[in-house]
Amino acid sequence: MNGSDRIFLPKGFQFSAITAGIKASGKPDLALILAGASTRGAALFTRNLVVAAPVEVGRSSLARNSGRVRAVVVNSGNANCATGPAGLRGCNNVCAEMGKLLKAKASEIFPSSTGIIGVPFPTEKVTSHLQPLLATAGASVEHFRHFADAILTTDTRPKVASASLRSRAACITGVAKGSGMIHPQLATMLVYVITDVAATANELKALLREACNESFNVISVDGDTSTNDTVLLLASGESGVALRAVRKEFRAALSDVCRSLAKQIVSDGEGVQHVVHLHVEQARNRTEALQVARSIAHSLLVKTAWAGADPNWGRILAAAGRSGVNLDPKKVSVDIGEQTVCKGSVACQFDERKAHDHLAQAECTIRVRLGRGKIGLEFLTTDLTADYVRINADYST
Amino acid sequence: MNGSDRIFLPKGFQFSAITAGIKASGKPDLALILAGASTRGAALFTRNLVVAAPVEVGRSSLARNSGRVRAVVVNSGNANCATGPAGLRGCNNVCAEMGKLLKAKASEIFPSSTGIIGVPFPTEKVTSHLQPLLATAGASVEHFRHFADAILTTDTRPKVASASLRSRAACITGVAKGSGMIHPQLATMLVYVITDVAATANELKALLREACNESFNVISVDGDTSTNDTVLLLASGESGVALRAVRKEFRAALSDVCRSLAKQIVSDGEGVQHVVHLHVEQARNRTEALQVARSIAHSLLVKTAWAGADPNWGRILAAAGRSGVNLDPKKVSVDIGEQTVCKGSVACQFDERKAHDHLAQAECTIRVRLGRGKIGLEFLTTDLTADYVRINADYST
Repeated sequence: MNGSDRIFLPKGFQFSAITAGIKASGKPDLALILAGASTRGAALFTRNLVVAAPVEVGRSSLARNSGRVRAVVVNSGNANCATGPAGLRGCNNVCAEMGKLLKAKASEIFPSSTGIIGVPFPTEKVTSHLQPLLATAGASVEHFRHFADAILTTDTRPKVASASLRSRAACITGVAKGSGMIHPQLATMLVYVITDVAATANELKALLREACNESFNVISVDGDTSTNDTVLLLASGESGVALRAVRKEFRAALSDVCRSLAKQIVSDGEGVQHVVHLHVEQARNRTEALQVARSIAHSLLVKTAWAGADPNWGRILAAAGRSGVNLDPKKVSVDIGEQTVCKGSVACQFDERKAHDHLAQAECTIRVRLGRGKIGLEFLTTDLTADYVRINADYST
Repeated sequence: MNGSDRIFLPKGFQFSAITAGIKASGKPDLALILAGASTRGAALFTRNLVVAAPVEVGRSSLARNSGRVRAVVVNSGNANCATGPAGLRGCNNVCAEMGKLLKAKASEIFPSSTGIIGVPFPTEKVTSHLQPLLATAGASVEHFRHFADAILTTDTRPKVASASLRSRAACITGVAKGSGMIHPQLATMLVYVITDVAATANELKALLREACNESFNVISVDGDTSTNDTVLLLASGESGVALRAVRKEFRAALSDVCRSLAKQIVSDGEGVQHVVHLHVEQARNRTEALQVARSIAHSLLVKTAWAGADPNWGRILAAAGRSGVNLDPKKVSVDIGEQTVCKGSVACQFDERKAHDHLAQAECTIRVRLGRGKIGLEFLTTDLTADYVRINADYST
């Protein structure tokens, strides 16, 4: 589903958002999820070695606390990254202050930040707004939508996905921000998935890792990795439904929610005109399929050809050839839409107009067969347009 | 030196170029270097597994022949890549026909192609023009300049570098094409370096590898690796000067020529506004310095920031952090021009206007210190502009 479809809100959560004056635009930039006392959480973080203060703090708090989370405090407009000891202190202060207000430990407050890197974190602006933020929290869909809006930066729209479990006995709902799957500056990916099933942190972690592998780990807009990327899964337990009783259904719903959010992030990528469903097939294993997919999805020449809806399959082939996978070019074939355009690395007869028309659509499909094995995957990526360059050429000055 | 400076032409070579009708523009697209009978050569090729027919043929011919080369036949406008057995036959035919005309073996003819991938190779157009190509060959600078022009594709200018040895007793001169798909491990880049010293193929190979490592292997425009990249070094011996007599001087001159050509290629990169001298310092070894340099040079966010002369050092830091080198962010610092903008991954006080002005120049310098060791290198790269996207969005259609 997307933002306009039905949202199921899990029991045990409240939401809030206000303007704390971090964004110059005056738009809401401080957001809160409140969670019931039995809530457990698990998170995955960026693999970048340069990480923001909230990533350091959140990772360590979850580890110390068996995943106990009472609140998530998110600010947009400042990434609190490359801000040194002062940034770390600021982040800890925010958690401590919110902890006091909730009579919870500081380590039960999960912090996130997104926005510009290297600018001092405006601790005061955040801490002085925690009280009003808390005071306006509520459990309605409207409150939830305020949260979804306040975490955005260069996104053009909020990203929400939702599924019910056991005929609405429980549910699972996710909200995300991100519009270049990365960067230190604007479009870090932050994802919060909440559910009211009852689960331990370890159960959540295993399921989250699995769902991420088939969603957020197979998308790319520009190939950069943010310093702040975070995916958090919280389970309040307040539906009374235990995870183990609905494990299979939960797993499928979590996967659906994550894949929907991943696609919404890609579709809203900076300057994106075309979303490309890139299928890499006949690999020996998932690792090499991913390696080929990333080499293609990150090639500037491939991405710019897509921007022009240009069926220039030679660039796709060349990108596969430099992926590091020891493939035999004579076994490689490429499809654009329903047409095979290259077989055994040699051009096929195909209708160029039809291939162009296929690529000119908002969504298109490219299939690369490696002729090495039986494993395949679908990778979601985008074209690279002059607009992307414009958006990113002059952000900090 | 560049194209406007003095060109020394080694003895024992002639040049020619004509229009064979491969390029739709009607510009010269078939070019020839003729070499004396004692000429020996060595070449380095793309590391892409998808390689063009002339790369297959040239590599095998040099190996079978102890590096004997009588002629180099280059066509632009068609890469003869992903053209299957027909493309390979076409390439072999061209070599056989030119061999007949010169009373040489087919394997003594070194073929190169550059242009679009996957379009059938126009063998007839090439073979039917070999006779007139040969007939117009000559040893003048004007002939040489015709060659330099005819091998270009999207280049905006020819690329030439030249050095004399032993007070002009011998000399060494290079000519190159390439302006996109430019990446270490060679690029869509054809380079021919000729000299009249006397040397064996093995001597040439060792020196060429060394010179490439500090020139063509430390540049990048768009991070793509071509299927056709070739650097060929030919020594006619006709100066009477033996390589071993001028080894040190030759090595320095070869390095100068290659580095000049590499810089000319980067400066003429598609849509390039700024050439960036990226110094990565304090690495443990050259491999990790190169890994960090490439991660930065290939980051779309970094390259687009450079397009806007935006001193957004956070993106540089984040790109270093995801390079795969196990660096400690607390030891990393970044300079833009003469100013240190980030130290220990934390923002320094610096003059933003001055940093912007530095980046706004045609050439600028960025220095990244890793705090891990004593090895450094200079990597030449470029910004990414909306013009690059425009040039590449609609190339084949």
